Order: sequence, then structure tokens, then C-alpha cells
Amino acid sequence: MKYERSSIPDHDEAAGPAERLRSELTHFDAAGRARMVDVSAKAPTVREAIATATVAMLQPTWQMIREGRHVKGDVLAVAQVAGIMAAKRTADLIPMCHPIPVEAIELAFMPSCDPPAIHLTATVRTTSRTGVEMEALTAVTVAALTIYDMCKAVDREMTISRVCLLRKTGGKSGHWERAGSVDEA
Amino acid sequence: MKYERSSIPDHDEAAGPAERLRSELTHFDAAGRARMVDVSAKAPTVREAIATATVAMLQPTWQMIREGRHVKGDVLAVAQVAGIMAAKRTADLIPMCHPIPVEAIELAFMPSCDPPAIHLTATVRTTSRTGVEMEALTAVTVAALTIYDMCKAVDREMTISRVCLLRKTGGKSGHWERAGSVDEA
Amino acid sequence: MKYERSSIPDHDEAAGPAERLRSELTHFDAAGRARMVDVSAKAPTVREAIATATVAMLQPTWQMIREGRHVKGDVLAVAQVAGIMAAKRTADLIPMCHPIPVEAIELAFMPSCDPPAIHLTATVRTTSRTGVEMEALTAVTVAALTIYDMCKAVDREMTISRVCLLRKTGGKSGHWERAGSVDEA
Amino acid sequence: MKYERSSIPDHDEAAGPAERLRSELTHFDAAGRARMVDVSAKAPTVREAIATATVAMLQPTWQMIREGRHVKGDVLAVAQVAGIMAAKRTADLIPMCHPIPVEAIELAFMPSCDPPAIHLTATVRTTSRTGVEMEALTAVTVAALTIYDMCKAVDREMTISRVCLLRKTGGKSGHWERAGSVDEA
Amino acid sequence: MKYERSSIPDHDEAAGPAERLRSELTHFDAAGRARMVDVSAKAPTVREAIATATVAMLQPTWQMIREGRHVKGDVLAVAQVAGIMAAKRTADLIPMCHPIPVEAIELAFMPSCDPPAIHLTATVRTTSRTGVEMEALTAVTVAALTIYDMCKAVDREMTISRVCLLRKTGGKSGHWERAGSVDEA
Amino acid sequence: MKYERSSIPDHDEAAGPAERLRSELTHFDAAGRARMVDVSAKAPTVREAIATATVAMLQPTWQMIREGRHVKGDVLAVAQVAGIMAAKRTADLIPMCHPIPVEAIELAFMPSCDPPAIHLTATVRTTSRTGVEMEALTAVTVAALTIYDMCKAVDREMTISRVCLLRKTGGKSGHWERAGSVDEA
Repeated sequence: MKYERSSIPDHDEAAGPAERLRSELTHFDAAGRARMVDVSAKAPTVREAIATATVAMLQPTWQMIREGRHVKGDVLAVAQVAGIMAAKRTADLIPMCHPIPVEAIELAFMPSCDPPAIHLTATVRTTSRTGVEMEALTAVTVAALTIYDMCKAVDREMTISRVCLLRKTGGKSGHWERAGSVDEA
Repeated sequence: MKYERSSIPDHDEAAGPAERLRSELTHFDAAGRARMVDVSAKAPTVREAIATATVAMLQPTWQMIREGRHVKGDVLAVAQVAGIMAAKRTADLIPMCHPIPVEAIELAFMPSCDPPAIHLTATVRTTSRTGVEMEALTAVTVAALTIYDMCKAVDREMTISRVCLLRKTGGKSGHWERAGSVDEA
Repeated sequence: MKYERSSIPDHDEAAGPAERLRSELTHFDAAGRARMVDVSAKAPTVREAIATATVAMLQPTWQMIREGRHVKGDVLAVAQVAGIMAAKRTADLIPMCHPIPVEAIELAFMPSCDPPAIHLTATVRTTSRTGVEMEALTAVTVAALTIYDMCKAVDREMTISRVCLLRKTGGKSGHWERAGSVDEA
Repeated sequence: MKYERSSIPDHDEAAGPAERLRSELTHFDAAGRARMVDVSAKAPTVREAIATATVAMLQPTWQMIREGRHVKGDVLAVAQVAGIMAAKRTADLIPMCHPIPVEAIELAFMPSCDPPAIHLTATVRTTSRTGVEMEALTAVTVAALTIYDMCKAVDREMTISRVCLLRKTGGKSGHWERAGSVDEA
Repeated sequence: MKYERSSIPDHDEAAGPAERLRSELTHFDAAGRARMVDVSAKAPTVREAIATATVAMLQPTWQMIREGRHVKGDVLAVAQVAGIMAAKRTADLIPMCHPIPVEAIELAFMPSCDPPAIHLTATVRTTSRTGVEMEALTAVTVAALTIYDMCKAVDREMTISRVCLLRKTGGKSGHWERAGSVDEA
Repeated sequence: MKYERSSIPDHDEAAGPAERLRSELTHFDAAGRARMVDVSAKAPTVREAIATATVAMLQPTWQMIREGRHVKGDVLAVAQVAGIMAAKRTADLIPMCHPIPVEAIELAFMPSCDPPAIHLTATVRTTSRTGVEMEALTAVTVAALTIYDMCKAVDREMTISRVCLLRKTGGKSGHWERAGSVDEA
């Protein structure tokens, strides 16, 4: 028996109309099977992505988190470590994500009181062949889940929403910024 | 030098007024430091949790995912594997979460067309000393991020929202069901 | 909006003829989506599984491994650690596998000289609601890959074969032993 | 006490006859201890590796997998995600493997009916100081184990064989292609 | 070919004098190969372990950490999360360690000023067939490494010492407490 | 709602006196929150780090390890694999550590008999934007913990000490070598 030796297809092959759909979903090969897209032909450039998320909660929960910061326990300090560590493991979690040598991660928390919520923003930077959108989204998501975990004993209805990309720069597609406000999401 | 040998505190010690806040945030010890709450005195019981999330997207993206299912690539099949695998790694991601021998995970996708969105629901079951709320939430969240990852080339404004717990059963606190509709989140 | 709250289906529901196939592939739910099968109704019992694998190689490679054992480097010592560590991570690698508290892992290497090969056998034991077949198979496989890795500089044609389950005991399906010889595989 | 400060040895030091064996097993240092070979002096080049594996099974199992594809559950879709994710974790599994920023992974399944089997082929590409042979082998192996896991309830005698490297390109040793047919393994 | 089906040996087999050494190093099998000791015959009991470590540093570093606590950055909060997360991954790091469902982790920091140092104490509890000594030791060690990481820019000579077990309870060997003071280590 | 889009701050901004402390602890941002320091502006250069650790033990334990090497079980072979694998996972363990493509790891064991101890030295090399101090320290630490794990049944008082950096080269801060002897630690 001798196998046909498949190899990763060329990047610019003409796509027939029947393959338009698939070619847009670049995570799939010609057989409809998922693949990790080939980025080896791309040049490594500096890329940055900023993502956001919001955790809505009850007023007492919100106050507890804020006071906890200054008095005793610091929910957000734990959430921050969780978000940063998760960003580094993005390629372990998201199947078709490329492993990327992340070079900077920042995660900021902005409380807003009406309605009571914590807004999270993650900024991730790399010099790589592909972007860090998923790393930034993973950072805010896991940080938000950590806030939920640490406060769920007092507020099970906490809700995470508005998880989205705000901005990305670098790479072939260049600068992109979310057009509509996040509220409209 | 001889250290004071700290040990994990008893469960029902009387808390002074100054410690009320902290005692509610059980993830913190008397010094305000985070800890993994002691569950060794709890009995292992069957526990179940159901969580949900919604991914909002453009109409063409939504159609692509739906058609992809039947034609070529299956975004949701990849998202499902990602969500299930992530649920098993919850304690690796959420710092104060207990490692739990998860015994069942189901992850369902429900497309709704107006506005175009995919709703995700995860059901997780275990026989353990603590619940699986975080496992269910992690499953829907990582599955949602995977949908984002696989479609971001055509729709960067996709937004994840309404990530919340729908129901939990088992354990000392017993049955709990989200009161308000998820829309109000 | 109010979601239908899906829950994990009962175990013995009558299956129509159209669902026979799926019901046999228990890793899929009614919608054809993969799931981690519910084992919460099963009783924890002692379970054991034995798996095997063979690494075929050139005569000089084989001799090098054998001599290395006594002289300088010990390829098999590294392979053994790799196999044992991998067995503990089986649920991280195999998507629908349940996380299992493995209680014993042994990994033995048996060189056979004609043709030159190393046979690997892993024995895994647990007290759990589900078996350890995949843990035993993962142990021999990753140990075999490690042998390949450490000798590939001198023998790229090394081949891993006859990876299979030899025996399992415990659980509802009880004792099972491979009928045919492994050679026939 | 002052330690001798060991450092990683130079690359081209003359090896006495007594050290010939060890020098061929480059994964070991002068004391016979395993090490991760120094690749820092190598130039990063584009490297590709193709590996293969075969899962032999009973005729009904084979048919179930094929039909499952079109009707309900898709065993191969799960196996594919598992293989791709495992390839990214190769350095976590194989002790002396270098962590590599994998840039493309493809995993193809080719059913053959007589005897009933699924052939797997993985193609991995990177721009790195060392090759991706182990990544390609890990991809096919874990994908094959996943097929086993999902069908073991109906066919415990499934056997994985012919796990080997088909081709590698790039790096100092350049192009290499398996000489003999895989059948002879 | 038909393999001898090795199985995990019985627990109380008589050991000849030639095997005394090995039998004491229970992590090795009869062939001198490492194994994960069989604990399946042990009863699950409540077990606790307390471990300690000390990070010695320059006076300004020590002051910075202490002030950082109240002013701006909190090195110890990050170290604590790191230690707790690492304890949960002990079986992933220490090859022959059994995976254990840890039920409680506490990590305390005690600064001492002369000489300037931070003492760490971790208390881990489980209900399991084997103890949590390694989990407690891993917690203090990784927390100590995290302190080093976060302050290394200003004090590269920081040194970790006195990493040892202080006390363990539960299991067949029962209560054990370190006899000598840690200083004598 | 429209978020302020935070971005990673410039590298050389003038710091007011109130921010001196924080600026020295570069792992914290202006809000006192931990972050993964931005290294994207640094050039990738060859960097090397050497770290050490000592495991003190009873005389019989020490002898057992030494004899085990030649007779039956090889504790140090297991410890070595553990240390090398842990070094590759440093960024997974130490929260603010950058993921680094490690290019060489060596781990040496030097027994010293009076007092009975094993000294460990790890040498790690990379071509990267940041150093490998933490990788070298993680290698010796996890290898030392593994020695403890494998001998704890016969010697629970084993103590790990003198964990420190011996030397680093490469990067902006260049060559650094520990001034005092390790004994003074």
C-alpha cells in the first residue's frame, strides 16, 4: 500500500464557486475537515488586540468587590492572574488557534455603578505571523468567569456579556476597530 | 526558628462584624488572602449545573455556519469538542475551583434567526463534594470563543453575551433556578 | 427569551430504528453532537486495563537502546516516565474521555530481537465509574513516540504498530480479553 | 561551597570512541543523562513533516463511522480536533521535544474497505530551529486513539498500526522520504 | 506472537534480600523501572499535609514587597494564586504522583525582618487513597518561585530554602511531624 | 457606552516619585494590577541561565539513590525528565512569565557526601526577547521535588535549599553572576 502524500495546499489557488463558502471559513480544508490554517507564508509583525467583557451583578456584590479591594480580599487580583494565565494557554483551549509567543498582556477592571457591573479590558501584544484576538478574548472571559466563581456564593445571577473585540492592529488586514458601540451588541 | 503551624480553620466559627464581608467571600482567609475553600467536610452528592451563552453575529455568518453544517465544514462540531475539553480543565483555569471528576457533559447549540445568533447550553453532572457551575460556564464560554475564532475572518464584530447559570441541583444549597429571564441580563 | 432547559437524557430510553446507529455510538447525543457519556449512575468499582504496542526498528538502533541501558543513556527510562505522565493526562487528550483518578500505572518494555523491536505493555488500575482502557493505550502510545523521538536521528523509519487493548476487567461489561493474537492485527 | 558551573557543551567537540554511542543518541549528555538537545545554533527554516497511522476495525464499525459522517454523529470530526490539539501539545508529552510554534496542521482521514480501516495522514509545518516530525506523529496517534475511544463500546479489538513518518523537508538534514512502503512495517 | 500479560504485583509479596533496596523505593518495579505505586487497595481517608519554604532577599526588596501590599502592587497576591493553581497540577509535574481531588488549599505568607525573608506555609487537605505532601510542597515552591520572578529585576540573588514538610496526618502511616527545627536543615 | 481603549504604556515614560516603587516592580501597571511586562520592543538575543538547588537527606537515603543508579531503580533519571518537562511549562506555572521557545535544557546531579546531599544544576538556553532564569529555576525545583517524592517513604525530612540563580547571560542587562557563594544564602 502506498499513500497519496497529502500536503498543505498553496495559498492562492483559484476557488470555484462551489468552494466559496469553505474558502471563507479558512479553518476547513477541501474535505470540509477542520485544520489549523497555514500561516507560514506570513511575515512576523507586531500585532495587538484589545478585547472587552462586562460582568453584571447585584449592587451588594458590586460593593463587596470594591470594598474587598481596600479591606480584605481582592477578587479582582485573583481574576487578573487568572485572565493573564489563560491568555497564555489560548492555543490549548481554542482548537484551531496557533500557539503564539505572547509578549505583553494587560488586563484592566473598570467598575461602573449604574447598573452595577465590572468592565474588563485586555490588551495583548505579540510579534508573530498571526494575531492575538483570541488571546485578548480569552483573557477577559476567564477573568470574568473567575469573578463569577469567587462571588457565586452570594450572587448566582451574575451575568457575563458584551464579550467582543474592540480593536486589532498589525498583520495583513491591518488596523480594525469596532464600528458600533458595544452596547448595541 | 519554629513556625506557627497554620491549619485550615473550622467551618462554623463565629464571625465578628468586622469579618462579615470576608466570611461571605469564602474564597478568602482571615488575612484577606485567597484560598481554595475547604469542602472536605461536605458529602459527595450528585450535582448538576446548566449554563448558557449566546453568540450574536451577522446574518451571512449565521447562514454560513448553518449551511456549513450540511455542506462542508462544521464550525459547531469543533466548538463542541472545545467546550467539552475546556469543561474538564476548569480547575486549571479558574484559580479557586476544586478539581472535580466530571461524569457527564452535554453541549447543545440552538440557532435563532432574528436577530441572528447561536445559543449554547451546557449541562454538566458529577458526584462530588462541590458543584459544577463553573464547569458548565466554562464549557459554553470556550465553545462560544471557538465559534468566534472560526468565523472571525468574516465577522469580527461577533459578540458573546448572556453567559450565565440557568439552573443547579444537588449539594447543601440544593435546587436553584434563575429567576429572571436571561434577556434581562 | 426563555431557553428550553436541556438535560442529560435517561439511560434506557427506547430507541427507534432510526436511532440505532447513534445509540451504539454513545458518545453522540440525539442531535448527532458529541458528548461526554453520563456515567454518574454507574457504581465505582475496581477496573484494570492492559494495553500493548510495538516499536519496530533497525538492528543497530535496537542494539543501541539495549546497550544504552547499561552504559550511558537510558532511552527506555525516559520513555517510561513519558508514558506514565501521559496516562495521567488522557482526559486532556482524548475529547470524550472522563477524568479518572488513576491509582496505579505500570509500563514494561520487552525487547525482541527478530525482527528487532521493543514491545511495550501498560497496566492501569482505578476505582472509578468508568474504565481505564484509554489510559493504558495512551501510556504505551506516548512511550512509543518517545522512543521514536530519542532515536529518530539515527533511524527515521522506526514504526509503531500493534497498538491495542489486551485485557480489561471490572465494570458492568466485566472481564474481556483479546481473542485473536496481536500478530493478526 | 562553590559549584562548578556546568554549561551546555559546544556542538562540534571531537568524540572519543567510547562516546560514539552516546553522541549518536544526542538526547543524552556526557554523564548519560537525558537532555533537551541544544538547537540554538541552528537557523530557523521552514520545515514540514508528514506522518501516517492506520486504525483497523471490524466491518460494522467501519460502516458505522462512514455512515455516522452523513447521518448523525461524526467520529472523525472529533478525532480531527483531538489530533490537531494534541499536535500543539507535543512538547508537553514527549520529554525531550522542543516547544515549536506550529504554523499549520492538517489531518486527513482515508477509509479503505478491504480490510476495513481508516488511514490517517497529518501534515505539519513550521518555521523553526528544529523539525515537526513528532508533532505530525502525535497528531495521527492521538486522532487514532480518539477513534478507538469513540467506538470501543462496539469494537474493543480495533488496532492502531503503521504509525510512521512518511516525509520530512527542511533543516540541515534536508529532504527525507520513507523508502520502503508502509505495508512492510 | 503472544505477550505475557504482566499485571500489577500483589502488595505483600515476600522480598528477597536482593530486593530490599528496591522494595523501599516503592516507585520502582521488579525490573528497576519507575511506576506509579498501586494505591487501589488503600482506603480513602482524610489526609492533610503542611509544607513550608523561605525566600531570603535584600532588605529593600523585602520592604518593597511589604509596602507594595498596601500601596500599589501586591506580589504576594500573585504568588498565592500561583501556588494554589500549581498545587492542583502536582500530578502533572511530579511523574509518579497520583492525581488527587484536592479539597482545600491554604497558603500563608509570614514576613520576618532579620534577616529579611518571607516564610510560606501551605496546608492541603483531601479525602483520598494517598497523601498530599507533594501538593503542599508544590504550592510553597511555585509561590516562592513567583516571588522570585516578580522581584528578580531588583534582586537577582534572592534564594529559596528550607523547603520541607512540617506535618502530615491521615493514611496508614498516620500522624507525622518534623522532629528537628527547620533551621537545622 | 464607549470604553476608553487602554493600551500598553510606552516604555520610557517619566515616573513621578510616587511611582518609583511600582516602576521598579515592573510586573505591575499604573493601577497596581499585575501584568505581563511588554517585551515586544526588545530584540531577540541568545540568552542563557544557570540555576541550582540542593536536596539534603539522610545518609541511607543518599546511599540508596546512588546505589539505585547502578542496581535497580534510578531516582535521578526520573527527576531529570521531570525537571526538563517542567522547564518547558514555566510560563504555565509562573503567572507573569513570558512563554519562551526554550532551545536547550541540561540538568546535572552532583552528589556530595558530607553532609549527604544531591546538588542540582540546570542550564537553559534560548533565542528570545526575555531571559530563561525562571525556566532554569523551575527545572531544578521540580527535579528536587521529584527526588523528594520518590524517597519520601523512607525519609520525610529531606529538605530542599539553596535554590538560586548562579549566572545569566544575554539580554540588555547582559552578563550577571552570583557574587556571594551559595552557602551564605
